[in-house]
Amino acid sequence: MEILGDFHFFMYSFKTLADSLDLELHGADVRLLGISTPFKAAPNELSVIFGKDVLLRLKEIRSKALLVDADLVSTDILKRLEDMEISYCLSHSPREHLALLIEQLIDRPKQQPGIHPTSVIGEESTIADSSSIGPYCIIGKNCHVSDSVNIYSHVVIGNRVEIGNNTVIHPNVTIADNSVIGNHVILQAGCVIGSDGFGYYTKEDGHHRIPHMGCVVLEDDVEIGSNSTIDRATIGETRIRKGTKIDNLVQIAHNVLIGENCLIAAQVGIAGSTEVGNRVTIAGQAGLVGHIHIGDDVTIGAQSGVIGTIRPNQIVSGYPARNHRQALKNLAYVDRLADFEKRLDELWRVMVDSGGVQG
Amino acid sequence: MEILGDFHFFMYSFKTLADSLDLELHGADVRLLGISTPFKAAPNELSVIFGKDVLLRLKEIRSKALLVDADLVSTDILKRLEDMEISYCLSHSPREHLALLIEQLIDRPKQQPGIHPTSVIGEESTIADSSSIGPYCIIGKNCHVSDSVNIYSHVVIGNRVEIGNNTVIHPNVTIADNSVIGNHVILQAGCVIGSDGFGYYTKEDGHHRIPHMGCVVLEDDVEIGSNSTIDRATIGETRIRKGTKIDNLVQIAHNVLIGENCLIAAQVGIAGSTEVGNRVTIAGQAGLVGHIHIGDDVTIGAQSGVIGTIRPNQIVSGYPARNHRQALKNLAYVDRLADFEKRLDELWRVMVDSGGVQG
Amino acid sequence: MEILGDFHFFMYSFKTLADSLDLELHGADVRLLGISTPFKAAPNELSVIFGKDVLLRLKEIRSKALLVDADLVSTDILKRLEDMEISYCLSHSPREHLALLIEQLIDRPKQQPGIHPTSVIGEESTIADSSSIGPYCIIGKNCHVSDSVNIYSHVVIGNRVEIGNNTVIHPNVTIADNSVIGNHVILQAGCVIGSDGFGYYTKEDGHHRIPHMGCVVLEDDVEIGSNSTIDRATIGETRIRKGTKIDNLVQIAHNVLIGENCLIAAQVGIAGSTEVGNRVTIAGQAGLVGHIHIGDDVTIGAQSGVIGTIRPNQIVSGYPARNHRQALKNLAYVDRLADFEKRLDELWRVMVDSGGVQG
Repeated sequence: MEILGDFHFFMYSFKTLADSLDLELHGADVRLLGISTPFKAAPNELSVIFGKDVLLRLKEIRSKALLVDADLVSTDILKRLEDMEISYCLSHSPREHLALLIEQLIDRPKQQPGIHPTSVIGEESTIADSSSIGPYCIIGKNCHVSDSVNIYSHVVIGNRVEIGNNTVIHPNVTIADNSVIGNHVILQAGCVIGSDGFGYYTKEDGHHRIPHMGCVVLEDDVEIGSNSTIDRATIGETRIRKGTKIDNLVQIAHNVLIGENCLIAAQVGIAGSTEVGNRVTIAGQAGLVGHIHIGDDVTIGAQSGVIGTIRPNQIVSGYPARNHRQALKNLAYVDRLADFEKRLDELWRVMVDSGGVQG
Repeated sequence: MEILGDFHFFMYSFKTLADSLDLELHGADVRLLGISTPFKAAPNELSVIFGKDVLLRLKEIRSKALLVDADLVSTDILKRLEDMEISYCLSHSPREHLALLIEQLIDRPKQQPGIHPTSVIGEESTIADSSSIGPYCIIGKNCHVSDSVNIYSHVVIGNRVEIGNNTVIHPNVTIADNSVIGNHVILQAGCVIGSDGFGYYTKEDGHHRIPHMGCVVLEDDVEIGSNSTIDRATIGETRIRKGTKIDNLVQIAHNVLIGENCLIAAQVGIAGSTEVGNRVTIAGQAGLVGHIHIGDDVTIGAQSGVIGTIRPNQIVSGYPARNHRQALKNLAYVDRLADFEKRLDELWRVMVDSGGVQG
Repeated sequence: MEILGDFHFFMYSFKTLADSLDLELHGADVRLLGISTPFKAAPNELSVIFGKDVLLRLKEIRSKALLVDADLVSTDILKRLEDMEISYCLSHSPREHLALLIEQLIDRPKQQPGIHPTSVIGEESTIADSSSIGPYCIIGKNCHVSDSVNIYSHVVIGNRVEIGNNTVIHPNVTIADNSVIGNHVILQAGCVIGSDGFGYYTKEDGHHRIPHMGCVVLEDDVEIGSNSTIDRATIGETRIRKGTKIDNLVQIAHNVLIGENCLIAAQVGIAGSTEVGNRVTIAGQAGLVGHIHIGDDVTIGAQSGVIGTIRPNQIVSGYPARNHRQALKNLAYVDRLADFEKRLDELWRVMVDSGGVQG
């Protein structure tokens, strides 16, 4: 089998696209047949440049149509683009312009409104006419699905679940009883919302489950990545506030509260009852213990182990997570320990020789 | 959409609940409309207090009905509860009492016994009449499902699988051929039991799969969290002994043996053929290499990297995992390296000045 | 319930098996009733010995039929095997011979060719007659499934997906639009191929999704573990080259490129746009930041944090990942810090006493 992954064909003029984004086109119009990454783009494929490193390798670029981060360019770069007869637009928000561009080009039609005949809808549940339920979904009793919701196939939803408008639920998602899902939420494939938290009491004969009667609340504009797991609260709620985006394979334990507009990267784990502020960024594979508070606007480095409360506006990393600069200094000190030991040995030798210490 | 996650309404007298738990009620009876977390509970909502920190913020509590960990209270606290006209019960096992309380209040009815007509049951498989199979389940050939089992929708079970009585299997779980699932087991949504282990032999032309003919055995009272993965053995078994509880997104590789009554937190990974003793606790994101032994009653700290055998009764942490106190000391030493270097520099300077060493 | 996991019964002569593997049998023929792990095998069960530690415990072995790694044996060992009347074959590639052995013994029949009537196949999609689609699968529009493909139940495949011949897809897998899956690929249960990557642009009102128009390409002989997630590219592709094997719960972000014949263990995370060379081994729970290059034949230790480009043929570990020997040395130095401090204190004391420094 010939493996050709990249096949997004379209036919646009660069000028038309630039106009649609309200950007000025420098150079000749280009008839575009596609969009691609900088070093793969053919002459008639548009490419977007965010990174300085790409501009350092400008001569490897064959595309004749670039959208370039305006903050990266110098008069020298502009001169070279003109010499290479590359047409370009400058953008002060290239990621936003890329997003708007893709939205014009992408062909991912929504499912038709309506409920697939193979889906099983429980008693007293209401589904708005404008919403779509794919094949083989299960929706429990007393649920409400609002307007323009798109639920793909094989989604399992428990009882008494609320789903806000314009929410998209990808295949194989499980949503347990009493969950509340806001508007414009996106749940990627395979994530689990509202599974029972990891709570036990221990007696001589072993561990016994504490039943979990709480729920999960995902506010508006929240996104949950593939195969991530968000546990229901023991009592009360596990809540993720509006605008927070969570990547794949993330674990959010029972009774966690996450603030607004956070970014939580893949494989992060947050233990029970921890509260995370607003606009917090947590890089990949970091872990937070339970029952701590993370202040607003904190950034937590990749693989950090956070074992205590972090005040607002800090950048932390390492284990245990502390001020990022301090963490970097510690790492640098450890790298110098060979030299420390050498000097210490030398001093010790001198002092032994002089009779100052007993060798 | 109004987002209101917390809606567990009931109507009980505090006295009746206290009686049912065999606890003494101090203060007036309270007519309860719900149960909630300490700082969110309304006056007519019961709250349970486990943590000393909560008692320090007593005046923020509005609930008039508390279940309090008896080990936390002093005569001073009791006096203040009375002054605030809060009724309370004291408990020496508050988690157990919370569990018993929730069991009375929770409304999570089991599915009706019987096999949903959309489920596909293979030849020679037997399902006890008292058990329930939800919609769109697949059960292979020569399986046996014992009494009072509750299998939710979209569960896929291979051939020759045994499932003990009173076991609960949540949606979207996959159980592969030859798995043996005990009594009173709980499998949370999306977990995978018995996938092929990561075993290859390598030749010049690349890696070749070693087929896995072994199986997974989950003994009685085992629980597996959402989206966790338990691989089948190459030959023989991957076995998790009775009473062990495993959290979400945990990886258990082929031929691992885990003892009784262990607690394994989220995102832990255990590599192939490692044996874990009884009553071992492994905190979140820890990793264990393959082919090692962990003794009984060991505790392994969060994010630890265990690369060798650990004797019984140890508390270990860090990378490589060692005695937890030693690991903490090492971390503290690293924090003092700036001071070490300063002193070393000063000594060095003095010794160079004195001609003792060559600068 | 009696829990008996190990029940692979067959009836073979050891001589016949040895002949089939082209190995010489030393000792008498044995009538075999099964295959098991070294310390569990009964006298009439075959066992395979890879590890020196097993040979040190030879007297605990009851099996009378062993397949032994030829590199491990000495004349002394051979003598003892004869004394114990154990028949054996010596193998220079015991893992390969085990694999070939299991292939003869294992009874995992493929599904019958054909499409289960409950599966939903989209318009313009073609499924080869020799392929099998299990119950409750969804295949979108304009897909092509080649020859001898085995798709188990509850698999959800989007639009315009290509699947090469002899590929096996286990239950509950999700494959999103435009994915390209090669020949002889194995997708374990619950993995997600082609979910939207974690890409946003941020404005004052919060984070906004960058739509992902790229795809995922899995080349021939790739394997993806249970519940692993492979995100589609923003533009272009996320590509995993031929022969690479990925374990469970691994996260591969958008636009990552992984070379040929890599081994990536469980719970590894690779951030966006990173490029991994050929024959790279990444041990469990390691994390790689985005936009870096890993050279060919690199080995990355368990739990490592790789934050920069790694040249070919390196073995790296730790955080930040560096030369593995250096990382081990650093760990050893940290273990000696108590001694460092003691000596430093002593030198300091002497120098204060002598008036050399101010205490």
